[in-house]
Amino acid sequence: MSYEKLPLEPLFAKIDELKPQFISRLEKAIAIPSVSSDESLRPKVVEMAHFLVKELTSLGFEDIQLRELGIQPPPVINKSLHLPPIVLGRYGNDSSKKTVLVYGHYDVQPALLEDGWNTEPFKMHHDEVKDILYGRGSTDDKGPVLGWLNVIQAHRELGWEFPVNLVVCFEGMEESGSLGLDALVAQEAKQYFKNVEQVTISDNYWLGTTKPVLTYGLRGCNYYQIIVEGPGADLHSGIFGGIIAEPMTDLVKVLSTLVDSSGAIQIPGIKEMIAPLTEKEDKLYDDIEFSVEELNAAAGSETALHDNKKDILKHRWRYPSLSIHGIEGAFSGAGAKTVIPAKVIGKFSIRTVPNIESAKLDQLVYKFINDQFKSLNSPNKFKVELIHDGAYWVSDPFNSSFQAASKATQDVWNVVPDFTREGGSIPITLTFEQELGVDVLLLPMGRGDDGAHSINEKLDVSNYINGCKTLGGYLHYYGKS
Amino acid sequence: MSYEKLPLEPLFAKIDELKPQFISRLEKAIAIPSVSSDESLRPKVVEMAHFLVKELTSLGFEDIQLRELGIQPPPVINKSLHLPPIVLGRYGNDSSKKTVLVYGHYDVQPALLEDGWNTEPFKMHHDEVKDILYGRGSTDDKGPVLGWLNVIQAHRELGWEFPVNLVVCFEGMEESGSLGLDALVAQEAKQYFKNVEQVTISDNYWLGTTKPVLTYGLRGCNYYQIIVEGPGADLHSGIFGGIIAEPMTDLVKVLSTLVDSSGAIQIPGIKEMIAPLTEKEDKLYDDIEFSVEELNAAAGSETALHDNKKDILKHRWRYPSLSIHGIEGAFSGAGAKTVIPAKVIGKFSIRTVPNIESAKLDQLVYKFINDQFKSLNSPNKFKVELIHDGAYWVSDPFNSSFQAASKATQDVWNVVPDFTREGGSIPITLTFEQELGVDVLLLPMGRGDDGAHSINEKLDVSNYINGCKTLGGYLHYYGKS
Repeated sequence: MSYEKLPLEPLFAKIDELKPQFISRLEKAIAIPSVSSDESLRPKVVEMAHFLVKELTSLGFEDIQLRELGIQPPPVINKSLHLPPIVLGRYGNDSSKKTVLVYGHYDVQPALLEDGWNTEPFKMHHDEVKDILYGRGSTDDKGPVLGWLNVIQAHRELGWEFPVNLVVCFEGMEESGSLGLDALVAQEAKQYFKNVEQVTISDNYWLGTTKPVLTYGLRGCNYYQIIVEGPGADLHSGIFGGIIAEPMTDLVKVLSTLVDSSGAIQIPGIKEMIAPLTEKEDKLYDDIEFSVEELNAAAGSETALHDNKKDILKHRWRYPSLSIHGIEGAFSGAGAKTVIPAKVIGKFSIRTVPNIESAKLDQLVYKFINDQFKSLNSPNKFKVELIHDGAYWVSDPFNSSFQAASKATQDVWNVVPDFTREGGSIPITLTFEQELGVDVLLLPMGRGDDGAHSINEKLDVSNYINGCKTLGGYLHYYGKS
Repeated sequence: MSYEKLPLEPLFAKIDELKPQFISRLEKAIAIPSVSSDESLRPKVVEMAHFLVKELTSLGFEDIQLRELGIQPPPVINKSLHLPPIVLGRYGNDSSKKTVLVYGHYDVQPALLEDGWNTEPFKMHHDEVKDILYGRGSTDDKGPVLGWLNVIQAHRELGWEFPVNLVVCFEGMEESGSLGLDALVAQEAKQYFKNVEQVTISDNYWLGTTKPVLTYGLRGCNYYQIIVEGPGADLHSGIFGGIIAEPMTDLVKVLSTLVDSSGAIQIPGIKEMIAPLTEKEDKLYDDIEFSVEELNAAAGSETALHDNKKDILKHRWRYPSLSIHGIEGAFSGAGAKTVIPAKVIGKFSIRTVPNIESAKLDQLVYKFINDQFKSLNSPNKFKVELIHDGAYWVSDPFNSSFQAASKATQDVWNVVPDFTREGGSIPITLTFEQELGVDVLLLPMGRGDDGAHSINEKLDVSNYINGCKTLGGYLHYYGKS
């Protein structure tokens, strides 16, 4: 698929002209602390949904719906807490045009000034020297969500016809497990989302800080727990130390066998399932802008496991990894406590990649870990189980939507974007792909250092404005496919 | 040392007669929630000190002092929080009599009805069917502290001369690290405590539930932490899994080398320091009332590491043990969190016994653990260090105070008490022995199932009343030595 260059300059000029209004729209959105994990702020999440409905209405969207998802399932403090609604809307319904669904989320991570923010997290701060917009949700995901709306406003003010039919699906629980979303997507696949031919999600980030990227792959994640149970209650190590089998002893022994200090997974059979690296794929890594130094800067240490860009990227994107996250039930406070924990639960997860079969992986994990425990001859009770899994996702970076986004990116940024994968998972990607049976494109707006879940979250004005241009340009190219 | 039987029946009868008053005295003490670890309850701890002063005054004590210990050192919320005072008092000052110091504490562990108590923890509940007194502090340590006062009241009402000069030292921070006590004991060794010839502490428990014991040994405890530090902040395992050296991987590997699942410490050189077991000592374990079943009942499981009484008791009292308590800095909550913890601190401790030298033990531990970490070839930062140590203590069960207490126990309970050691430490024991240069006797009042730090803490009325008789009888026999 290759596209002719389109005359998008008037659109880009209009977007530049509307910059103050777009920044003001984002400022209003940031001012609503729509933290989905904080039950006391649930009314603010709902307020944010209504804010979006008002914006969609004024932009001429039709069939706008606030879809209620019912009561939030436990664990909750308020047992009658309602899930925030999903906002649906439709812009254009012309059967001669392609229909694109854009997904985004209007909820945000928690944020408190005391956490270390330099400015109030829910009061947008425009640093005019650096031309950066600071505030919770600026890049994750209010900036990108409003980006789609900004594109429509620019078209309306230009008097341009919109190049596609746009369906929006904005949820308010993304930061809290996307409760209710899967069911809604499944239910609406043949209803509200009937004619959708393509799904575009702008909810991830550039790899680095200077070069745009398009993302065509995500690792999956199988998360396990190992439960070791001995005494009926926590015991005092003075009284019981040396005479009772201690669950922590068994647990650290089993955990210690899973992965070595160089990151190599020790569970047999996993390596064999990894898709072989082809020469073509290997070459893809050559041009990507990244360096060991960037990794060190992001990690805040010089403890990288690989000393060159390609190995780092491959191990982040196309090889599995195993991380031990922690232990539930053991002493975890500061200081010294002489406890023998009665029941301890070790947590670890494996990032999965093509062609690791999730169910087969589980069996390999269970067998290896049970064998390790058996070899200890411990009288304690033992169990290993899956907490949750999410499959990996890989798309075709040469399909029409990726190529349309690439063309738009070149028009805006004067550079061919890097085609990247990500180490983490965005489960909704796979849900849309599977339920709607269409391709998904991940088209990020922000930079790798935006601090999506950290303090001082930001979105550079250039990323916001050029991001709008890219989203708009992409729809024009994709509309021609 | 052997004692002639003394005619103590009138004293015992008087104590029986005063039972309702003694129970009422304990009820008043339990009603004061003197929780030393709860800053907001500090006024109640101080109120409890004043309660004791009032009791001591009415019983004719002299030179009663409330010794202020200054501001509580950090970590505290209220930076001007005062430590609770130590209560000193003197009963009798006859140079022809022996002088005995009794130590106890008037603070208690936290307790909330919601924790699972059957009755309000700070409202004494007398179960008249079982004849048991329930309430926080009943056995730890308000019952024993008041026991000494009850003995004096009985003597006064009988018109009997008191057999010794009694010095009391009651602290209010025992459950919170005995802050300030060591310094006071050192300072008063040649002052307030000048003529003290013997220290008696009633702050531990019978081994089981039916047979009285006298305690002549305690294990020590060296508590260590292993710090592994990698990235500058916690990282997301999706993004960094497989490309960064993970501190948890290193920590569980090192922790897994310390002890095996049968409880055998794997650090070389420790075993060699343990005092050999003599035939005479081995025989001591023959008659002690204890069983595997009692251990299983106490632990709430059938996960004992030894299958016979003698091995269990030896491993509790005279062999070292190593317990892994937990990890600070890792994920410790319920559910699944895909974090790579940046800095993790593993906590473990070794219970020490004669003749393990604490400083030499530290060196063996450091060398072994550093070697283990080196073998991992990890780029992470690593440190192992001692958090605190407390030496073991062993006294002579055949000295005059133990024999006096044994004689009194036989008079009251009609049985020769078991001479036991304990697996845990009571650091103040060693402080008194070393600072005052005198023998210390541990003379418990309560039973092994009293639940000192648990819910539904209790003291059987028979233990309270017979305990008073034993304390009184002991002072009479010891006064004759």
